[in-house]
Amino acid sequence: MIDVRSIASEIQPLEAEWLQRAQNHLDQLTKPPGSLGKLEHLAKQLVAIRKEMTPRLEKKAVIVMAADHGVCDEGISQYPQAVTGQMILNFLQGGAAVNVLARQAGADVFCYDIGSKADIPNEQLHSNKIRNGTGNIAIEPAMSEQEAELAIMRGVSLVHRLVADGYTCFATGEMGIGNTTVSSALLCVLLEKTPSEIVGFGTGIDATKKLHKELVVQRAIHRFESAKIKRHEERIPYALELLAQLGGLEIAGLVGVILGCAYHRCPIVIDGFISTTAAVVAAHIAPNAVQYMVPSHLSHEAGHRHALAHLELQPMLHMDMRLGEGTGAVLCFPLIDVAIAIICEMATFESAGVSGELDS
Amino acid sequence: MIDVRSIASEIQPLEAEWLQRAQNHLDQLTKPPGSLGKLEHLAKQLVAIRKEMTPRLEKKAVIVMAADHGVCDEGISQYPQAVTGQMILNFLQGGAAVNVLARQAGADVFCYDIGSKADIPNEQLHSNKIRNGTGNIAIEPAMSEQEAELAIMRGVSLVHRLVADGYTCFATGEMGIGNTTVSSALLCVLLEKTPSEIVGFGTGIDATKKLHKELVVQRAIHRFESAKIKRHEERIPYALELLAQLGGLEIAGLVGVILGCAYHRCPIVIDGFISTTAAVVAAHIAPNAVQYMVPSHLSHEAGHRHALAHLELQPMLHMDMRLGEGTGAVLCFPLIDVAIAIICEMATFESAGVSGELDS
Repeated sequence: MIDVRSIASEIQPLEAEWLQRAQNHLDQLTKPPGSLGKLEHLAKQLVAIRKEMTPRLEKKAVIVMAADHGVCDEGISQYPQAVTGQMILNFLQGGAAVNVLARQAGADVFCYDIGSKADIPNEQLHSNKIRNGTGNIAIEPAMSEQEAELAIMRGVSLVHRLVADGYTCFATGEMGIGNTTVSSALLCVLLEKTPSEIVGFGTGIDATKKLHKELVVQRAIHRFESAKIKRHEERIPYALELLAQLGGLEIAGLVGVILGCAYHRCPIVIDGFISTTAAVVAAHIAPNAVQYMVPSHLSHEAGHRHALAHLELQPMLHMDMRLGEGTGAVLCFPLIDVAIAIICEMATFESAGVSGELDS
Repeated sequence: MIDVRSIASEIQPLEAEWLQRAQNHLDQLTKPPGSLGKLEHLAKQLVAIRKEMTPRLEKKAVIVMAADHGVCDEGISQYPQAVTGQMILNFLQGGAAVNVLARQAGADVFCYDIGSKADIPNEQLHSNKIRNGTGNIAIEPAMSEQEAELAIMRGVSLVHRLVADGYTCFATGEMGIGNTTVSSALLCVLLEKTPSEIVGFGTGIDATKKLHKELVVQRAIHRFESAKIKRHEERIPYALELLAQLGGLEIAGLVGVILGCAYHRCPIVIDGFISTTAAVVAAHIAPNAVQYMVPSHLSHEAGHRHALAHLELQPMLHMDMRLGEGTGAVLCFPLIDVAIAIICEMATFESAGVSGELDS
C-alpha cells in the first residue's frame, strides 16, 4: 500500500450473494417483509461488508481529525481560530460532546492532529502534522498536491493501525474552525452548485456574515477554476488537485479514513457536513467506497442535504445538529448493534409458530 | 385516582424555571449554543419532567398493549387475525423485534393482553382483558364507553405498578391485527382529515386493498358522525365516546399509559402510527400530557406525519419503519441516555479553557 491509487484500486463492491443471503434471512423473521426499513438495509450492508452472517462490530472507533484553516483570515467564523487547539485538548480530556456520546456508545475516540496551529505534546494525541494550518483558499492554494496525498495516506495508515488493534467499526469526526467554509467550496465544485445553495450558518453566524462567507467561497472557487489543469474524469489527480487548492487537512485525512475503512471491509459511519464532503471526495476517488458508508444524521447545515443526495445516502437521524466532531455519526453506533441483533436474535415465523401473509 | 377525569386534572405543565435552568447549563457547555439540536431540547424536557438536573432514567419499560379488532371481518389486513395471539406468545418468548431492540437498549418489555381473542395462560403476561376483541367499527361500536374508560384505567394502573417497581422511563408499543384501520378512523375524526390522507399500506397491502381499507374507514366515520352525541369541546366525554365508537382496546390502554406517565412525571416515548393515535387522544383528554411525550420516529405509514404535526412533535428517527410493537420508540432510549449524559458529563467553556464566541 504505497499510494492513493493502489488503495483505491483494491476497494471492491459488495457481493450480491451476501446481500441476498442477508435478505433471505430477514424475510423469515417475525415481521412484515421490509417493515424495519433502514435497519434491514443496514443489516444487509453490514453482512455484505463483513462477509459473515453475524458480523462482529463490537470494537468501535470515532476518528476526530483536527486542522486549522488559513481562510479564517477572511473572518468567516463566529469563533477564534485558537478554539481548534483548545478543543483538541478538550477531546483529549474527554470533555467534548463526542467524548460523552462515544462513552455512551461504548466507542473510543481517537483525536488526530493532522494540521492544527496548536502545539500540543500529548501521548494520547495521534499527531503527525503535515503543516501548521492551510493557506487561505480565497487567495492561495490550501496545500500542495503532495501534502494532500500525504494527508489522505495518514488517514489510511491510522485505520490500518486501528484495524490491527481489533477495531472493525468506524465513524468520522472533525474539528477545525473555518472548515464549513472550506467544505462549501469543495462541494460547490464537486456538486456543481452555487455558494448560496451550499453555504450555511456554520457555528452560528448571522445573515450578513453568511453572505460574506458565500463571497469568500465564490472567490476561492474562481481561483480554483482559473488555476486547475486536470479534468474531472481523471478521478484521483483531479481529487488531489481539488484538495490541494480548496481543501482542509482534516478533510483530506478523513478521505483517507474512509478509503482505509473500505479497503479493510469495515463500515464507516459518515458524520455531518464536513465529513460528508470528505465522503464525496472519497467517492470521486473510489466510487465503490460508497457501499461501505453508513449515513448518520441530516445536519442543520444547508449543503448537507445536497451532499447526501449526491451519494444517494439516506440519513437515519434528523436531530437538527450542527456540531461536527463525529457527534451525529456516534449516535448511529447503537443502530448498528441493533441491526446485527435483529439478524442474530429475532425469531422466524417457523420457530415462533406465527402465521405468514394471507394469499392475495 | 378513581377515574380518567381526576387523573387528567392532575397533569401539570412543565415549569419554566426548570427549563431555564437546563438551558443555562447547556449554554455553558463546549459547543456553539443550540448545536446539539433536538438532543438539547430533549435534555431540557427531561430535566423539567423529573425536576432534577441529572434525571435518573436508567430503568426503562416498553409497554406492548395487545388486542383484537372486529373490523378484521372486512378483510382489511394482509395477515390473519390469529397473528395477534401468536405474536403475544412471541413477545413472551423474547423473539419479536421489540424484544431484541429492548435488550439492546437495556429496557424491559411488558406485554399486556387487554383484549385479544387468544387465550394465553402465562404469568409473564400482564393480562386483564376487557373483552375478547372489539366490535366491527364499520357496522357497530367497538366497545361501550364504560369499557373504553376501563381500558384507559388499566393503562394508568400498569404505569402505577411499574413506577412502584422503580421504572422512570417508558415507551409505548402495541400489537393488534387491524389496528392501522382503527387508528386511521380515529385520526380522520380528530384531525379532520379524509381517509385518503390518513390510510396507509399497514403491514403491506396492495393499492386495491388500500382503497377498500379507505372505504371501510369512511363507513366507520359515517357511522360515528351519525351516532355521536357529544361535542368535541367536552374533552373527556368526547374522547370516551370516540374510543367506544371507533377505538381499539390497545389504543385506549395506551391512552392510559400516556396519561399515567404524565401523571407520574415520567417521559413517555411515543412509537409510530398507532401509538401516536393514542397520543392524540391522550392530548385531547389532557393537553398538558403532550409535554411529557418524547417523539421517536417517522413511520412509513402515511397518516403518521399528520398526527405528529397535530401534536407539534418532531420525530428524531427517519427509518422508514412500519412495524409497531414499540420498535421505533425503543430505538430512542439511547438518545435519552445521551441527552442526560450531555448535561452530566460535558465540559464547560470555563472548565476546559475554550474561548467563546467573538463579539459581533
